[in-house]
Amino acid sequence: MAEKIPTTSKQWNVTGSDGFDSLKFTEQAVPELGDNQVLVKIRGVSLNSRDILVAQGTYPWKVKPDVIPGSDGAGVVLKIGKNVTRFQPGDQVITMLNQQHLGGSLDPKTMRYGLGASVDGTLRTVGAFDEQGLVAMPQGLSFAEAATLTCAGLTAWNALFGLQGRPLMAGQWVLTQGTGGVSLFAIQFAKAVGAKVIATTSSNEKSKILKEKLGVDHIVNYRETPNWGEKAKSLTGGAGVDLVVEVAGPSSLKQSVESVKMDGIISVLGFVGGMESKEPLPSILECWMSLFTARGIWVGSRLQLEDMCRAIEGNPQKLRPIVDKVFKLEELKDALGYLASGNHQGKVCIEVP
Amino acid sequence: MAEKIPTTSKQWNVTGSDGFDSLKFTEQAVPELGDNQVLVKIRGVSLNSRDILVAQGTYPWKVKPDVIPGSDGAGVVLKIGKNVTRFQPGDQVITMLNQQHLGGSLDPKTMRYGLGASVDGTLRTVGAFDEQGLVAMPQGLSFAEAATLTCAGLTAWNALFGLQGRPLMAGQWVLTQGTGGVSLFAIQFAKAVGAKVIATTSSNEKSKILKEKLGVDHIVNYRETPNWGEKAKSLTGGAGVDLVVEVAGPSSLKQSVESVKMDGIISVLGFVGGMESKEPLPSILECWMSLFTARGIWVGSRLQLEDMCRAIEGNPQKLRPIVDKVFKLEELKDALGYLASGNHQGKVCIEVP
Amino acid sequence: MAEKIPTTSKQWNVTGSDGFDSLKFTEQAVPELGDNQVLVKIRGVSLNSRDILVAQGTYPWKVKPDVIPGSDGAGVVLKIGKNVTRFQPGDQVITMLNQQHLGGSLDPKTMRYGLGASVDGTLRTVGAFDEQGLVAMPQGLSFAEAATLTCAGLTAWNALFGLQGRPLMAGQWVLTQGTGGVSLFAIQFAKAVGAKVIATTSSNEKSKILKEKLGVDHIVNYRETPNWGEKAKSLTGGAGVDLVVEVAGPSSLKQSVESVKMDGIISVLGFVGGMESKEPLPSILECWMSLFTARGIWVGSRLQLEDMCRAIEGNPQKLRPIVDKVFKLEELKDALGYLASGNHQGKVCIEVP
Amino acid sequence: MAEKIPTTSKQWNVTGSDGFDSLKFTEQAVPELGDNQVLVKIRGVSLNSRDILVAQGTYPWKVKPDVIPGSDGAGVVLKIGKNVTRFQPGDQVITMLNQQHLGGSLDPKTMRYGLGASVDGTLRTVGAFDEQGLVAMPQGLSFAEAATLTCAGLTAWNALFGLQGRPLMAGQWVLTQGTGGVSLFAIQFAKAVGAKVIATTSSNEKSKILKEKLGVDHIVNYRETPNWGEKAKSLTGGAGVDLVVEVAGPSSLKQSVESVKMDGIISVLGFVGGMESKEPLPSILECWMSLFTARGIWVGSRLQLEDMCRAIEGNPQKLRPIVDKVFKLEELKDALGYLASGNHQGKVCIEVP
Repeated sequence: MAEKIPTTSKQWNVTGSDGFDSLKFTEQAVPELGDNQVLVKIRGVSLNSRDILVAQGTYPWKVKPDVIPGSDGAGVVLKIGKNVTRFQPGDQVITMLNQQHLGGSLDPKTMRYGLGASVDGTLRTVGAFDEQGLVAMPQGLSFAEAATLTCAGLTAWNALFGLQGRPLMAGQWVLTQGTGGVSLFAIQFAKAVGAKVIATTSSNEKSKILKEKLGVDHIVNYRETPNWGEKAKSLTGGAGVDLVVEVAGPSSLKQSVESVKMDGIISVLGFVGGMESKEPLPSILECWMSLFTARGIWVGSRLQLEDMCRAIEGNPQKLRPIVDKVFKLEELKDALGYLASGNHQGKVCIEVP
Repeated sequence: MAEKIPTTSKQWNVTGSDGFDSLKFTEQAVPELGDNQVLVKIRGVSLNSRDILVAQGTYPWKVKPDVIPGSDGAGVVLKIGKNVTRFQPGDQVITMLNQQHLGGSLDPKTMRYGLGASVDGTLRTVGAFDEQGLVAMPQGLSFAEAATLTCAGLTAWNALFGLQGRPLMAGQWVLTQGTGGVSLFAIQFAKAVGAKVIATTSSNEKSKILKEKLGVDHIVNYRETPNWGEKAKSLTGGAGVDLVVEVAGPSSLKQSVESVKMDGIISVLGFVGGMESKEPLPSILECWMSLFTARGIWVGSRLQLEDMCRAIEGNPQKLRPIVDKVFKLEELKDALGYLASGNHQGKVCIEVP
Repeated sequence: MAEKIPTTSKQWNVTGSDGFDSLKFTEQAVPELGDNQVLVKIRGVSLNSRDILVAQGTYPWKVKPDVIPGSDGAGVVLKIGKNVTRFQPGDQVITMLNQQHLGGSLDPKTMRYGLGASVDGTLRTVGAFDEQGLVAMPQGLSFAEAATLTCAGLTAWNALFGLQGRPLMAGQWVLTQGTGGVSLFAIQFAKAVGAKVIATTSSNEKSKILKEKLGVDHIVNYRETPNWGEKAKSLTGGAGVDLVVEVAGPSSLKQSVESVKMDGIISVLGFVGGMESKEPLPSILECWMSLFTARGIWVGSRLQLEDMCRAIEGNPQKLRPIVDKVFKLEELKDALGYLASGNHQGKVCIEVP
Repeated sequence: MAEKIPTTSKQWNVTGSDGFDSLKFTEQAVPELGDNQVLVKIRGVSLNSRDILVAQGTYPWKVKPDVIPGSDGAGVVLKIGKNVTRFQPGDQVITMLNQQHLGGSLDPKTMRYGLGASVDGTLRTVGAFDEQGLVAMPQGLSFAEAATLTCAGLTAWNALFGLQGRPLMAGQWVLTQGTGGVSLFAIQFAKAVGAKVIATTSSNEKSKILKEKLGVDHIVNYRETPNWGEKAKSLTGGAGVDLVVEVAGPSSLKQSVESVKMDGIISVLGFVGGMESKEPLPSILECWMSLFTARGIWVGSRLQLEDMCRAIEGNPQKLRPIVDKVFKLEELKDALGYLASGNHQGKVCIEVP
């Protein structure tokens, strides 16, 4: 607990927009702590494709000049500002991406403070964070594992349980796509609450982790079965899946619509499959023609993150985050490159000693 | 109460698909009552564009041969089958469209029994209905007014309050389109619970009923203001509307998306504006890019209808259904023609003495 | 499927109020089937303490003269009335206690039709039931197991998930009492959705089934630890349990209040512990003084039963009902006596060949 | 906007526990502003019985030595700390009682920071408040009116709409008790969303404001009708009220239980009627015997306060807070005495020029 408080922090900054070359690694003095700030020794970071966009200068939203990138972090509280009430030195904490999305609806105001873009992020050894933007880290996880909760974990949780009044229930069917971080979390959460999962994948090798490790009920290879939506529907006995965790975007939306049950839900989370599409995308009118609800999601709130952390702590075997590979802080460029290659199954992380 | 029970019923049947000429009006014997059936003297019917499609033979779903059309009806119970428990002779009742959608999610099974299409409907003087498909009529309404609740009323109610956990709340903004039956009900319900309403319309004449009679907060003429979505957003102070009651379809979806708040809701109810569109429709991916929820709706459940009837009974001034014009039963073809002309403001009804 | 339809049914009737001596077992003709009735060959029945009260003539609510007792039943559809739409011959079904509680709030009207009290019940070989009062039986269960879902299963499900908007979530703490049917179901459902369970019991022998078979997280012997409420609170880390499944009544309410978290829920299900209490019971004002919600429950609705059946079907290992002992139909008095002795762990059932 | 920033503040402190004599009024230097604090010129305060208890030294929870009392305040932002993001100078704001109850469940941690008890409150001319504990003031209200929202308004809102998934709906029946601040707000909110209200009162004089000004549907004089619970039930047509706003406590609980509908809600808010009772209070087991939900409430969260402020802003006529009498800041003792006398109808306030 009585850890010595460093006076300098090693940190990455995005100093331009020349791709990863803009990333500079330096050592800086730790600035004075604000009254409501918490000084955190970062011990684990997890990377997201958003970090690639920020590092490359192609992130479509506001980025602070020379920003320290990284939204996902886990570490130990070293020191607290004089008005801090939420934490004590020695506490283990994780960061939130939307620093001000405490609960209720996301709004443009709460989106303005995005960690690792408009606000300095987690890719450093020591940093000061607003106490409102941190949450107690679940016990039983490594720091790298805990860091994955910030974005991938919370997005998946929100996708499954975030439509108030219609959370995923035991016995319902969920469809997930691929083996990215959000999809793996969605599978884990779904299985942990007794739901059934159909997962799409492009490779029989990746099927293993899905079936053996995660207990997915059915796997559909979307290359071998281009009409995987219809296939998924038939696997449920004909009614369709209750909830689709739609991450691929244009390349998959039509099949997702095919797969979903009448009055089911499609949680729309982005377009990791790229923006290209061979055919016109299903329009919003399709919600009426096929009778379902499509819900766009951007991460989640602090209240949701707290609910999720409690679920993880209460289910240590089932809900251990899946980390594909761990890099050192100074290897950030390699780590981002590996992430960009798309060969991972689960999260790409950084550990700081 | 001790009404004499007729032995014959005058009724309309759809006998072919030659447009309104297929509609035949005859007198038939009242058949024996089933154990769980209720014999109803129909006193009021309200018409929907669905009735035009059924009459013309262009309804895209299953239609029973020689069906008696009409989903919306209100009347008096004449007699009950021996196992009926829900009603007594003398009770006033209204019909449900989806005879078996009692509560929870709509599913293909409960959609199979649509009054006036796959099951004989309300355009007759006397009819037997399953006790499960009827609901007590709210006090204080005429039979024609009460009949409008079956489809237009319930669809509007579901659009505003049907997303479990996220019903419309006082102080929120609703956007409605035009002066059709569903839109007028949506305005009335929204105002009755303290919400604020922006209504689009094409004519300054129709603005009157909206503003003076219904208390709409702002009216936007969509012909004069093609970018009415942006206009609506600015009228809310910049955040956008909380809920759009989208009835027009292709011609309006893009503006609806423009108008809606982050994390807002678009209730998608059909395409009374026709299926043509000058530009590509917003795709489901837009739910993520602009962060909102799009929810397709098909009428609603008996539980919702009962909630709505209670609301109507408790707010007799504010929630009196708006009937544009009343026809006689034998004038059905004229009534359907008038409905098809699109000149109505509120519901087109039939009254039976 | 083409089962021969019997013309007679063996059945129990409650013919007076002389205790179990009033129970008579006879063979009667199967009456004509109503238009909306389903003829069911009963294959499994499960017994509840309510059946003891009905048999003894001490049930406090309305009992039909000479009623056939039994609310819980599972069997096979032999034949359907001419207007039946929900089932086909050969379907496997289970019964509902409140024959008319289809969804939404329980009300006095829907309570009037209680199977095995005001309406003839399941303790017979063949019976006609209203199609609305039956639900498809989950696959993978024996008939005796399936019969336990009607009351014990549904009550437990409602206790955990029935407060709309606040269902039990993964990682939350549940407190259960004893090894009666409702409590064991509550443990199973809670564990199946990733919650943590503290169970009270009076015997170390019963602890085995709780811990080894059901995976309860902590067991508190309420005889050895009279202040088990406080103990349970400390086992959660000090905050208290999120939800108490309160079945014992006067003897346990005070401890339940001690155990519950701020803003937690106490589902109040009756008084199997008897109506006597050494100390005054906590009053409703306690809800405010300790800040929690107390919710009285009476079984549940058909919509909830359907949700539960889907959960059971999707989790065949975890959610197999626990049957203590199975009797033959003609052994009903022995079975009720065994149930009354209180030595069971799980449900006491009847099987009919 | 460019208001001059005072260097001193006039303020009340509770300096002992000798009743109102412990209240001292002095002028103190305005301390330096914390990084996340907002300096507010207080313009309106509203008083609660809690303030009497704090002033008298009889408040049962933690009180800071020499605390500045007052939880309810409205004013203008003079200056913001360097890390403040939620407000700008010139903004009009209101205070929250539970400074850290931002959303979700109340917990002991968020209860620790109660304005005017464990944290310095609003009975001063200028004060620094944590930005998280303030909310934008609804437009169209005076400062005294706005101050009433903090406790009385939010408590009433929570009582009606706070049970997630079961908010009060149009057409439902609400029962309120007396003419205290919470009860009047509950009546106003209920009527604004189309619900029906039965209000109890002890005086025919007070009936006027209830009926003429607030549009209460039925009034029951509880002195003339001691069985007012039964009376209220009959006024609803026999089913009972959907929701009771129970503020009186022991003297009324039994009647509240009599009045409530099967599956209805009793929001339990305290005991302004005193702790004495002629008869034993209904126990929590009554929730099961009469089948209802009893929910204890302590004010509400920031998310709820924001929802409420939006509702008030959108319904300026219907939702204008009812202020009985306004005092000057230096007249605090008189104001508290007047409040203690119980003769008010609506809120007792302070205005600061």
